[in-house]
Amino acid sequence: MKKITTIREMQKISNDLSRQGNAIGFVPTMGYLHEGHMSLVDAAAEQCDTVVMSIFVNPLQFGEGEDFESYPRNAEGDRKLAEERGVDILFIPDAEEMYPRPMTSIVKVKQGTDVLCGASRPGHFDGVATVVMKLFQAVRPSKAFFGQKDAQQVAVVSNMVEDYHLNIEIIPVPVKREKDGLAMSSRNVRLLKEERREAPLIYKTLIEAAEKIQSDKISDPVSEARSKLAGLSGTVDYLELRTYPDLKEADGTESGTLLLAAAVKYEQARLIDNVMWNQQKG
Amino acid sequence: MKKITTIREMQKISNDLSRQGNAIGFVPTMGYLHEGHMSLVDAAAEQCDTVVMSIFVNPLQFGEGEDFESYPRNAEGDRKLAEERGVDILFIPDAEEMYPRPMTSIVKVKQGTDVLCGASRPGHFDGVATVVMKLFQAVRPSKAFFGQKDAQQVAVVSNMVEDYHLNIEIIPVPVKREKDGLAMSSRNVRLLKEERREAPLIYKTLIEAAEKIQSDKISDPVSEARSKLAGLSGTVDYLELRTYPDLKEADGTESGTLLLAAAVKYEQARLIDNVMWNQQKG
Repeated sequence: MKKITTIREMQKISNDLSRQGNAIGFVPTMGYLHEGHMSLVDAAAEQCDTVVMSIFVNPLQFGEGEDFESYPRNAEGDRKLAEERGVDILFIPDAEEMYPRPMTSIVKVKQGTDVLCGASRPGHFDGVATVVMKLFQAVRPSKAFFGQKDAQQVAVVSNMVEDYHLNIEIIPVPVKREKDGLAMSSRNVRLLKEERREAPLIYKTLIEAAEKIQSDKISDPVSEARSKLAGLSGTVDYLELRTYPDLKEADGTESGTLLLAAAVKYEQARLIDNVMWNQQKG
Repeated sequence: MKKITTIREMQKISNDLSRQGNAIGFVPTMGYLHEGHMSLVDAAAEQCDTVVMSIFVNPLQFGEGEDFESYPRNAEGDRKLAEERGVDILFIPDAEEMYPRPMTSIVKVKQGTDVLCGASRPGHFDGVATVVMKLFQAVRPSKAFFGQKDAQQVAVVSNMVEDYHLNIEIIPVPVKREKDGLAMSSRNVRLLKEERREAPLIYKTLIEAAEKIQSDKISDPVSEARSKLAGLSGTVDYLELRTYPDLKEADGTESGTLLLAAAVKYEQARLIDNVMWNQQKG
């Protein structure tokens, strides 16, 4: 596995690979890798010739009071995992390389950011879109792989790719879960024992509600699910039913793809999870 | 000369050219071509293998009440001029191709936009940066050529290229002038007879003031120049001395590159012009 720390070198290698007709599959991450990231690597390896993974904890997407400083990091462990799983190129720029001076501009996201995670994290998706634009220009992949756990992020990035005619296919990869159903996340290590024990209820509540929405069993499964999550020791940031990928309000009677998503704030970790499905109603 | 109307085709050709080691010189324009644009084509032809010119009147950079609808257009004449001058590829997407749906995001410029033209044209440079990002992704040039007449635009675009690590060199090309000194502009055709007669005074006033600033002859050549322009039949939007390219306030005692720029609003046309120079003061 090749390790690259500068954007210029990454661009040079990417250009050389493209010239050889070699398709790059890109897996952008913030590190502290787990099986969720590895499923992205597997998908990239299956669909592309060369797998490039980036590890960069992007300060721009953390708000004031959020966990940028304490975001879990494990550079050595990450490198081993990436190499074992078949990553060809590990792109690990530092903050000085990514932001040598303050940005004079940002990618400002105007649609789909006032709901779900965007509502409580102002500027978060601007930070995501901006760094992903930078990474895309550095890596120039054919395909980029994102975890469907961050469903809103996938929507924002897919829209941005369309906005700027980037010749990159965005591939969403299904959520990887622990045996008890908890969505894998780098932040899970910061759950207290009791929190970790009850956290799988988030997913359980989401799938139960999703089933009810599909089968019309009760009138308001979303409120019911919200009440259920309110019983947890964490604080429910949101639990919302939305159309996907436009993230418009939904009441469950729609046909098409629906997203039922939740965020719960624990003492040291804010967890998100979601379920998505297609339905025909009417 | 090849004419291309779709982004996909433009990207395909650009990729093929890059693979052959062919450097693309890009001249983005809004059409109604004049000798100013042609000097950009000449520079591109001199420095690159293939010259791509785009013609697109970008609605996003026009504010409410500005002259998007009435911006002068001459598709047939433009094609002839471009072909005669040696443009290899004319990229002429329509609005439906560039904006098939409303943008979900924009490139929001945070620095250098509250002064000069930015002060009276809110959102203008966001529109410029956004469309230039889109055009750069479509054309993927090695170098892009911009007229120094739009000095603030050159600064914004150069900064954006750095922000997103675009592998594109921005080449500013000196202002082309009519024999009487008036800066060439597509909007000059909309000057009334009397306005056209006095308009060369804008440039004359700028160079006189620039000389005084460099030679310390009087204490406030900028105010003096502003008073002089106030005697014109148009309205002086601004006349300002700034550092370049950071566009910070300057008083003429600075060492480095200075920009003295003015905008004058006539009945049907808003004209801009500037002079730039390097100076060492001590």
